[in-house]
Amino acid sequence: MRLGIDIGGTKTDAVAVDELGALTQRVRLATGFGHDAVLETAVAAVARIGELTGLAPGGFQSIGIGVPGMVDTASGQVAHAVNLGLEQLELGGMLAGRLGVGVRVENDVKAAALGAYHLLGLTGTMAFLNLGTGMAAGIVVDGRLWRGSTGIAGEIGHLPVDPQGVLCACGQRGCLETVASGSGVARQWPTDDPLPVRALFLAAAEGDPAARAITARLAAGIASAVRVLVLTVDVGTVVIGGGLSHLGERLLGEVHEVLHDWERTSPFLASLDLPGRVRLVPEDTPVAALGAALVGEN
Amino acid sequence: MRLGIDIGGTKTDAVAVDELGALTQRVRLATGFGHDAVLETAVAAVARIGELTGLAPGGFQSIGIGVPGMVDTASGQVAHAVNLGLEQLELGGMLAGRLGVGVRVENDVKAAALGAYHLLGLTGTMAFLNLGTGMAAGIVVDGRLWRGSTGIAGEIGHLPVDPQGVLCACGQRGCLETVASGSGVARQWPTDDPLPVRALFLAAAEGDPAARAITARLAAGIASAVRVLVLTVDVGTVVIGGGLSHLGERLLGEVHEVLHDWERTSPFLASLDLPGRVRLVPEDTPVAALGAALVGEN
Repeated sequence: MRLGIDIGGTKTDAVAVDELGALTQRVRLATGFGHDAVLETAVAAVARIGELTGLAPGGFQSIGIGVPGMVDTASGQVAHAVNLGLEQLELGGMLAGRLGVGVRVENDVKAAALGAYHLLGLTGTMAFLNLGTGMAAGIVVDGRLWRGSTGIAGEIGHLPVDPQGVLCACGQRGCLETVASGSGVARQWPTDDPLPVRALFLAAAEGDPAARAITARLAAGIASAVRVLVLTVDVGTVVIGGGLSHLGERLLGEVHEVLHDWERTSPFLASLDLPGRVRLVPEDTPVAALGAALVGEN
Repeated sequence: MRLGIDIGGTKTDAVAVDELGALTQRVRLATGFGHDAVLETAVAAVARIGELTGLAPGGFQSIGIGVPGMVDTASGQVAHAVNLGLEQLELGGMLAGRLGVGVRVENDVKAAALGAYHLLGLTGTMAFLNLGTGMAAGIVVDGRLWRGSTGIAGEIGHLPVDPQGVLCACGQRGCLETVASGSGVARQWPTDDPLPVRALFLAAAEGDPAARAITARLAAGIASAVRVLVLTVDVGTVVIGGGLSHLGERLLGEVHEVLHDWERTSPFLASLDLPGRVRLVPEDTPVAALGAALVGEN
């Protein structure tokens, strides 16, 4: 049995996965804010899964943690996890000290990529396109995470696609993330609605021209991210995940429409079958926790 | 001993490579135009290297051919090699019939990527950014060519980066290739000079404002290609090759200038050390023929 934990900005998912990779237990906790509270959240998650499975921490074949921010997978150190209130934390080392066993720490998007790959039974090459506050992709090649030479493979949210675009937090202009992410939508469509992107799509469906323009830019940005992933790595599948993926078929439909529009003007793009490569992550499945349980296995 | 041939639009390079990967013989022939002439060129290249090494075709450990266009590496079929006058040719099968031994056929940019990787003694991940008539990259991972799921990995010349850009032959607008390739320069700077890009750089050095603008767009396009390759695959090295690379340090200097400019406004980009990842392919080395000799070995 393996244990996987995904520490998100507000919620923490924890799962137990059996030797066949099937999810056998699942719990959800509120995530604490700041160094101590994040560590306690992880400890509590291990304890809860331990109760459900009857296993002590040392009884699991492996324990893996997915966490936002920059992760040094060798040392288990996490940096710049702003949503968790972490500037820098020796999460791997401190958690190992508390549990008495080693843990593996991985960036949450990369963990989700691995989880989605296994959950969907994919083979070959896949990208998990995470549309959360920001945009980033996790790339899996033949069942293994592709980290690249310096660990920044898949950071496609900071590829500029429009010299006339708005300034991005990264210091560049017109990055994909400025139009195709939660923060990109929030900037263009300020609202008190607790589900801002859903509110945007509702307004667009009701014919609001500003909302229509923003959703069109969002869909075009996602389609551009798919094109980037195919024309560089040539991934066979792009799985759309992250907070924006909860829009489900409505979002996928808009993206498909953009991709089909492109095919009408470009025989080259039409030959790549971009629409056929894109799918949504399964709804209500803790893919990042599942992937965290599998991290390091391969 | 291995034999490698690179069939270019005007010249064909052929090399013999010993078991340590060192180049021992090299010849250059004019390339014929059209199906029959291309096949005869390849046969003549094998004969010339055979004379120099004293080996019959069957005496080589392998024979590999690099050729422009779409290559089916399994069947040895070449399609859409416009510069060679080939719509479709069973190059692998027909050449094997003529020589009495099997040959391996690979796209010339991919062959050059493999050749440059070995010639430069690289490890890890590299992209060979070919700036010829068009723009495309060959990606090498741990000494092996990365082809992707459908063989189009590295076709970054057709990534649009400017919605206001010119129409590309592929049907899209503002592709990298429209500004950062031989054809892109030729469109903007029509000239009878036999070395049009050299003439452009000379005019720019003499202060011609139009030439300055075109070289600036060229350098920015190359820098953008480097950024794409690093933010997707995270290659440790980008080797600039192809016809435009003959501009040498002048071109590399312009590209470095763009990358350093970006670093001044983006701490994110500065953290990636893009300038430190870029280098030129060694001058006057038949990297594609060398790579063709190594194709299939790994």
